[in-house]
Amino acid sequence: MTTLDDLPIRDDLRGRTPYGAPQLDVPVRLNTNENSYPVPEPVVEAIGKAVAAELRDLNRYPDRDAVALRADLAAYLGHGLTADHVWAANGSNEIQQQLLQAFGGPGRTALGFTPAYSMHPLLALGTGTRWVPARRGEDFGLTAGEAVAQVREHRPDVVFLCSPNNPTGTALDPAVVAAVLDEAPGVVIVDEAYAEFARPGTVSALAVLPGHPRLVVTRTMSKAFGFAGGRLGYLAADPAVVDAVQLVRLPYHLSALTQAAARAALAHRDALLGTVAAIMQQRDRIVAELRARGHRVADSDANFVLFAVEGDQAVAWRTLLDAGVLVRDVGLPGWLRVTAGTPTETDAFLTAMETVS
Amino acid sequence: MTTLDDLPIRDDLRGRTPYGAPQLDVPVRLNTNENSYPVPEPVVEAIGKAVAAELRDLNRYPDRDAVALRADLAAYLGHGLTADHVWAANGSNEIQQQLLQAFGGPGRTALGFTPAYSMHPLLALGTGTRWVPARRGEDFGLTAGEAVAQVREHRPDVVFLCSPNNPTGTALDPAVVAAVLDEAPGVVIVDEAYAEFARPGTVSALAVLPGHPRLVVTRTMSKAFGFAGGRLGYLAADPAVVDAVQLVRLPYHLSALTQAAARAALAHRDALLGTVAAIMQQRDRIVAELRARGHRVADSDANFVLFAVEGDQAVAWRTLLDAGVLVRDVGLPGWLRVTAGTPTETDAFLTAMETVS
Repeated sequence: MTTLDDLPIRDDLRGRTPYGAPQLDVPVRLNTNENSYPVPEPVVEAIGKAVAAELRDLNRYPDRDAVALRADLAAYLGHGLTADHVWAANGSNEIQQQLLQAFGGPGRTALGFTPAYSMHPLLALGTGTRWVPARRGEDFGLTAGEAVAQVREHRPDVVFLCSPNNPTGTALDPAVVAAVLDEAPGVVIVDEAYAEFARPGTVSALAVLPGHPRLVVTRTMSKAFGFAGGRLGYLAADPAVVDAVQLVRLPYHLSALTQAAARAALAHRDALLGTVAAIMQQRDRIVAELRARGHRVADSDANFVLFAVEGDQAVAWRTLLDAGVLVRDVGLPGWLRVTAGTPTETDAFLTAMETVS
Repeated sequence: MTTLDDLPIRDDLRGRTPYGAPQLDVPVRLNTNENSYPVPEPVVEAIGKAVAAELRDLNRYPDRDAVALRADLAAYLGHGLTADHVWAANGSNEIQQQLLQAFGGPGRTALGFTPAYSMHPLLALGTGTRWVPARRGEDFGLTAGEAVAQVREHRPDVVFLCSPNNPTGTALDPAVVAAVLDEAPGVVIVDEAYAEFARPGTVSALAVLPGHPRLVVTRTMSKAFGFAGGRLGYLAADPAVVDAVQLVRLPYHLSALTQAAARAALAHRDALLGTVAAIMQQRDRIVAELRARGHRVADSDANFVLFAVEGDQAVAWRTLLDAGVLVRDVGLPGWLRVTAGTPTETDAFLTAMETVS
């Protein structure tokens, strides 16, 4: 039998395994930061209708530029943005891959402050971009001084910032974004996948877009919108950045079904985003309760919480799984990440945590 | 105002424009080899139902490995293939990009026999793979000897073959595939996007898969299935190749909607593929009629026809457009490509051609 080792794959892929959390059939799944609330019935009907209207003409290619969808996304973001400032793809992974293809790639460097979203280095690998794992400070924080010093040292073509950061959950001080923008010679990507869950007063990097043509803010409908299965990520930036990703995007990358479904979801955003406040409550409850029990917990502006356990986190992960609760071991020694879902899921998680020290 | 030139894009992208045929609103669109027949009403209903069943759970990520869809695609292909032999993505462009990421990339070379599908060199560019434009022979043919000599000279990591070839339309002699497989040091991709339209007796490279773990056959549902708007491309190969692309695929790249819609379309393949014979008739009619009028015409196993015009093909293209018929100028001096659609579309095209010499 032929195995992967027998094939002429790239040397830098040898010995690797595919990225992805285990997709296990467990009663309480709190491992991939999904929105635990199903799509409300009126929105199901609206999306169904919008998709159905596309089906007869599926023999035709979709709008290659997805202009109507981009206009809807811009209207949602506000900040005076228009379709020209927005680009959409099959998840923010594809958005970030396109950005690396345009601004990174062979002979170029991308830098991120780890621990952060673990796909960033994999996207660099997949696009032939050299990856520099810069460091976060104490308790996973990041100050402007720490960030600028590392950008100055490595002069990366692409800098990834994450706000709120995944897996730690904390939003960045806007001063960090401003300082990195000043220092970085290339493109600065602020990954705001979890922005809608941020605590009151948190400022989005969208506010800084005017006058910063090398700044790109990426977003997703997977989390707050509860649209993970629909796969829709997007970016906001200067229109020249949108021109740049169009040089590397695959033609017709976004299906007619995706475009129609995402537009219908955006039209019903009040209903979909109605779950955000409830999820934030559970997030705050998890933080408070774990701290009351003596766990170290990172501040969270996201729909998940990073918390410390005693001893090997893989053992604690297994203990929780045995209790029917699936959380995420992100490979940080002594730490685990749990998604904030429904009150019932929080109950189950906190009960299961009683068996974990 | 910031322009593309002001941004730090890759040097090899400078001066380029996005790939894609003009999306013009013209009565008769025969420029992108779409299937001209809309999806039949019973299939519309079935796809609508299948998609609707996914909507409530869109808050959850889709099956990352798309196992059920891959099993359905394998069953359609036959040849004893199973889900383990098949991989699917958002169009065969994404499939081929993943193959280049796994087997090409920085420091590696891909070779294709031009003129062929014009995305192949662009996919190479986007993945940092060096592109070698090998040549076809007289009248766009390709013999085993010509192919092997160029593979021997360049020793590419990835070879692209196209059968039926786009834009010329002619299927490859299986001897060419066999000879290239023997000579090539790396992976051999046979792009069979138009396979379902091949003339009787044409052999698919699927038949050669057993015993050839470096052979990959790519297909699409965009053409014969009339599913261009649904975006579903796939490959068949040794299971080890499927393992390889999983190292570079974006997690959850294929939405729940795409998976459900494609499965429903496959379940109704008899209805969808029912248009293929009618399209082949129009294809043969176009070939015969243009030849009768004295045009040089390439043999076609696809749903399109490459034909010669006198003088500048861009002038002929414009003349046809002015007559309401959009065909494709693929950049081959003296040649144009027209999609075979409905009888009415053929009528319009042939009438418009009376004004073109």
